Amino acid sequence: MHKIAVLTSGGDSPGMNAAIRSVVRTCAYMNVECMAIYRGYQGMIEGDFVAMNARSVNNIINKGGTILKSARCEDFKTPEGRKKAHEQLVQAGISGFVVIGGDGSFTGATIFNKEYDFPVIGIPGTIDNDIFGTRYTLGFDTALNTVVDAIDKIRDTASSHNRLFFVEVMGRDVGHIALNAGVAAGAEEILIPEENLGLDRLLESLRRSKKTGKSSSIVVVAEGDKTGKNVFELKEYVEEHLPIYDVRVSVLGHMQRGGPPSAFDRVLASRMGVKAVEALIAGKTNLMVGIIDNEIVLTPIAEAIKGHTKIDRELVRVSDIMTI
Amino acid sequence: MHKIAVLTSGGDSPGMNAAIRSVVRTCAYMNVECMAIYRGYQGMIEGDFVAMNARSVNNIINKGGTILKSARCEDFKTPEGRKKAHEQLVQAGISGFVVIGGDGSFTGATIFNKEYDFPVIGIPGTIDNDIFGTRYTLGFDTALNTVVDAIDKIRDTASSHNRLFFVEVMGRDVGHIALNAGVAAGAEEILIPEENLGLDRLLESLRRSKKTGKSSSIVVVAEGDKTGKNVFELKEYVEEHLPIYDVRVSVLGHMQRGGPPSAFDRVLASRMGVKAVEALIAGKTNLMVGIIDNEIVLTPIAEAIKGHTKIDRELVRVSDIMTI
Amino acid sequence: MHKIAVLTSGGDSPGMNAAIRSVVRTCAYMNVECMAIYRGYQGMIEGDFVAMNARSVNNIINKGGTILKSARCEDFKTPEGRKKAHEQLVQAGISGFVVIGGDGSFTGATIFNKEYDFPVIGIPGTIDNDIFGTRYTLGFDTALNTVVDAIDKIRDTASSHNRLFFVEVMGRDVGHIALNAGVAAGAEEILIPEENLGLDRLLESLRRSKKTGKSSSIVVVAEGDKTGKNVFELKEYVEEHLPIYDVRVSVLGHMQRGGPPSAFDRVLASRMGVKAVEALIAGKTNLMVGIIDNEIVLTPIAEAIKGHTKIDRELVRVSDIMTI
Amino acid sequence: MHKIAVLTSGGDSPGMNAAIRSVVRTCAYMNVECMAIYRGYQGMIEGDFVAMNARSVNNIINKGGTILKSARCEDFKTPEGRKKAHEQLVQAGISGFVVIGGDGSFTGATIFNKEYDFPVIGIPGTIDNDIFGTRYTLGFDTALNTVVDAIDKIRDTASSHNRLFFVEVMGRDVGHIALNAGVAAGAEEILIPEENLGLDRLLESLRRSKKTGKSSSIVVVAEGDKTGKNVFELKEYVEEHLPIYDVRVSVLGHMQRGGPPSAFDRVLASRMGVKAVEALIAGKTNLMVGIIDNEIVLTPIAEAIKGHTKIDRELVRVSDIMTI
Repeated sequence: MHKIAVLTSGGDSPGMNAAIRSVVRTCAYMNVECMAIYRGYQGMIEGDFVAMNARSVNNIINKGGTILKSARCEDFKTPEGRKKAHEQLVQAGISGFVVIGGDGSFTGATIFNKEYDFPVIGIPGTIDNDIFGTRYTLGFDTALNTVVDAIDKIRDTASSHNRLFFVEVMGRDVGHIALNAGVAAGAEEILIPEENLGLDRLLESLRRSKKTGKSSSIVVVAEGDKTGKNVFELKEYVEEHLPIYDVRVSVLGHMQRGGPPSAFDRVLASRMGVKAVEALIAGKTNLMVGIIDNEIVLTPIAEAIKGHTKIDRELVRVSDIMTI
Repeated sequence: MHKIAVLTSGGDSPGMNAAIRSVVRTCAYMNVECMAIYRGYQGMIEGDFVAMNARSVNNIINKGGTILKSARCEDFKTPEGRKKAHEQLVQAGISGFVVIGGDGSFTGATIFNKEYDFPVIGIPGTIDNDIFGTRYTLGFDTALNTVVDAIDKIRDTASSHNRLFFVEVMGRDVGHIALNAGVAAGAEEILIPEENLGLDRLLESLRRSKKTGKSSSIVVVAEGDKTGKNVFELKEYVEEHLPIYDVRVSVLGHMQRGGPPSAFDRVLASRMGVKAVEALIAGKTNLMVGIIDNEIVLTPIAEAIKGHTKIDRELVRVSDIMTI
Repeated sequence: MHKIAVLTSGGDSPGMNAAIRSVVRTCAYMNVECMAIYRGYQGMIEGDFVAMNARSVNNIINKGGTILKSARCEDFKTPEGRKKAHEQLVQAGISGFVVIGGDGSFTGATIFNKEYDFPVIGIPGTIDNDIFGTRYTLGFDTALNTVVDAIDKIRDTASSHNRLFFVEVMGRDVGHIALNAGVAAGAEEILIPEENLGLDRLLESLRRSKKTGKSSSIVVVAEGDKTGKNVFELKEYVEEHLPIYDVRVSVLGHMQRGGPPSAFDRVLASRMGVKAVEALIAGKTNLMVGIIDNEIVLTPIAEAIKGHTKIDRELVRVSDIMTI
Repeated sequence: MHKIAVLTSGGDSPGMNAAIRSVVRTCAYMNVECMAIYRGYQGMIEGDFVAMNARSVNNIINKGGTILKSARCEDFKTPEGRKKAHEQLVQAGISGFVVIGGDGSFTGATIFNKEYDFPVIGIPGTIDNDIFGTRYTLGFDTALNTVVDAIDKIRDTASSHNRLFFVEVMGRDVGHIALNAGVAAGAEEILIPEENLGLDRLLESLRRSKKTGKSSSIVVVAEGDKTGKNVFELKEYVEEHLPIYDVRVSVLGHMQRGGPPSAFDRVLASRMGVKAVEALIAGKTNLMVGIIDNEIVLTPIAEAIKGHTKIDRELVRVSDIMTI
């Protein structure tokens, strides 16, 4: 393993730069050459490579986004695209790569690995925390803090006016961000795809909340939740059936993906980058780096893709108790 | 002037608590009694009063929202409502009040003043900075920082994907937040109600922006802007006419109203509260406290209501130059 | 178990209020009365108790410090003091308490438990992460983010002037804050009590750092580190032996203890509070709540006091690699 | 004026990068070439110049520090040094420069201007706000927010333990940061060089503060204050004479200089940069850009150097009232 490449792929998340830095510096430490691939698999196909040394990644550990850019790439889904990518890698003398991204990025990597027996290691970078084989994905902790900070601000104005807010947060098909941020922000109700609360029980809960003397309410809604058609219809439904409430909606949107990574995500990224390079050097392949029980571990990418993370039942119960 | 009341009215803004604290402590310092009126004019009508002393406002200078709650009040728009309010004030021995709020709140105050010759002083509390007679309204600086921080985060993800973002910010009919936040966040284009850029010129600008090698773009849109019907239609229009762009929308929403006030807003609130109480004690009435040329000054409320703030032409020009 | 009390003791940490809230609300949920004890064991001895209900803890989940106040208490170290405390608890009908604090607080609790067979459960609240039986103490994650944010700021000015900074961080006898914050902030060197780097190796490392082209350097120093007598002597030593460096010192101090708790600490506090109350109701005693492998678990307080946390060797290695 | 140079000099401050960006982009907009000079006057003497275009300053508006680096330069204080600098400028075809810095930097610029009749314009960049001819220096607003945020955190722990904190803040010989941050953070006492409170009156004030029922106290101390020899001696003095207080000290240090600039500082920097370039193009010289009454104005550098800013008496009075 003389030359390792690193790329980011799919949606960006805070901590990706810290992981890039870690891969690059670990290569330098191990005396292995390192190449950056720009714009994900698209850049791989186009040979958009740049040699990196330890100083190339100065002052990026605290930056959101990814300095290598990211992109979704249709061409890499075709055999022709992957063939070109392989040619580019071979031509550049690259003998393995680390891909930082999510599900889709790993699927591409593992197909590529099978076709060309090319060593690949994945690092899970997404704010959604929806990847099997790791307790935390890179960016999840930062996104939680961003969401909670935003809801704290919304709470100020909600309390001042005795209002009910529906706050929609990211998370694709899963409710990890919603559940954790909801508990952390003291939300009165949390709507996640994994639980079908139903509109009737939502109304019931809001009625009870009003009775217990709460002067304002925050309902955190995962973007994948199906209780209402969407958060705006939820608002209309509640206003119709509970006219006592003055309801507002806030969709937090893409700010959840950015910002300087939290201390937790920076440490996690640094640890994962070391493990990824060590695995490649040790001749391992087709694995994803994860953190389980605070140990950095490796899981077959195939399992990571197939498996599903589960919502934390204990935390759902904690949430129920807290909203009394 | 033996007893002064203080209330917050209309939409809340960061710094209101700091202003309440200042009014209460200035009363204590001047040996004047102070009463808090809860829930704005509604609480005035209902006699929802609580006596305050210097310690009642401990640890609130850094809190967003308003501990006195706020509300819009239809009853105060009727002579009957104002009659009841007057009776409550008289009964409680209150001989003047300070109202912290915006246009609507001041209109109510000045009508009340005329009908009952009751001393009133206004403090402009709104994030929109749309009040004549003051260079800065309470909360404007904090809201700017909140907006700019959010756009910084969006920029991270925009840069990583070479995307165009339309970011809608608050400001009611005026573009002060959009213009200032747009310049501060390095927006490529700023759409404000005071300027009719038009869709064609927007496209032109975006085309030019792409040509100059910018890899991502942020367009800040004031909620009152009329360039498109709304920010979502802007997105569709641009995607149709400039398919080169991958466009996203983010509506920042109510988080802009909350959060701990900035240093600037806390100092401003402290200064304004002192001036308001001093004015009442000096027998003045029907005036609004403002800051002009860094001096705390008084303007007749009638003028504050009638006048219009103007967009800063120099800053529009600075924005044009910066986006080259 | 009809009535449970809760107190905070020793140094405060972010997340204590979230834990108080959780204890109070879990009691309400379980139909158990809850009493707050103010000012730690001192308040216990003086009977400074206040009944709490679910609404008593509104809007505190995001506040640093502790609304119950804390204090170190000499009287509780004496049999007489504990006797008084026991009388107060019995008189108030309290049949068990949850103490949120560190080592010293737990020692007091366990002695009290032995003398009076009084049910006690501990929740580890300290930023130092130095308590055995839990992977994370309450407040550690928040403190890390505070420290890293401060070092990010210092880095700005260090880079602008090519300076070397020694930044002293808290942590008592252990280096957990220093090690984690150092990795997260990209420190060039980290000095912790668990490793004896020695002055010579520090100079060596700084010389190498300069040679590799780094334009500025941050050295994070744990307050318990013994490499130099203190951080100011370190500065003098380095300036004398490496005059090439322009050295500055920053002692971060007590700001590390405050601020709104991070999302992680708020979730952790909520989970721990539930477990603590459940344990008391289930008749358990003399246990500390902790989090291990992401499960909320119970450890005998005796073990928690005796045991020692170890520095994470893998993270020390990651740090070495990152600073190449 | 075909080619303009820009440099940063002296201590760095947040907003310097935003000002560099503004100078560079205004040059591009005006079709004037722009050169960056690295490391202040030292780089000028050494000819450390780099050509800049509009894209060279992408994504720096939100970065603390200065991408051009800064340095204090002894050589520029000598005629020989300035001669070399002039030769370098002439050789590079530079016909005027904008220097962003403080007092010392302006002194150098104006001497250089006299000797070589070389056009210079200054932009006041320092957190201390100690420059005559401008109401606000670049970085002052950001530093205030940083200080106030830190004191908010210290307040959390002060309140939890009923402690007294002396918090030392920057500001060189003047008390602007201390006074404004003290008011904004709700400090119980503010010690500034412009006022000689004296140790006796400090004790008196602290005694009164305790009597009024305040549970904790923050005293903000300007680094230039002379009430005690330093903040640590203040602590000892108070502990000796007021043993009722448990006193702690916090010296905020260099973190006050860094961090992303506030919205205010970014807008100010953008406006000042435009004005500076316009002035050079218009043939003006030896002037400093400032903001007075919200207008961007020009003041002779000679006056800026000689003049002294005054402490705001009204704000001192507001502070007195607030601490009742």
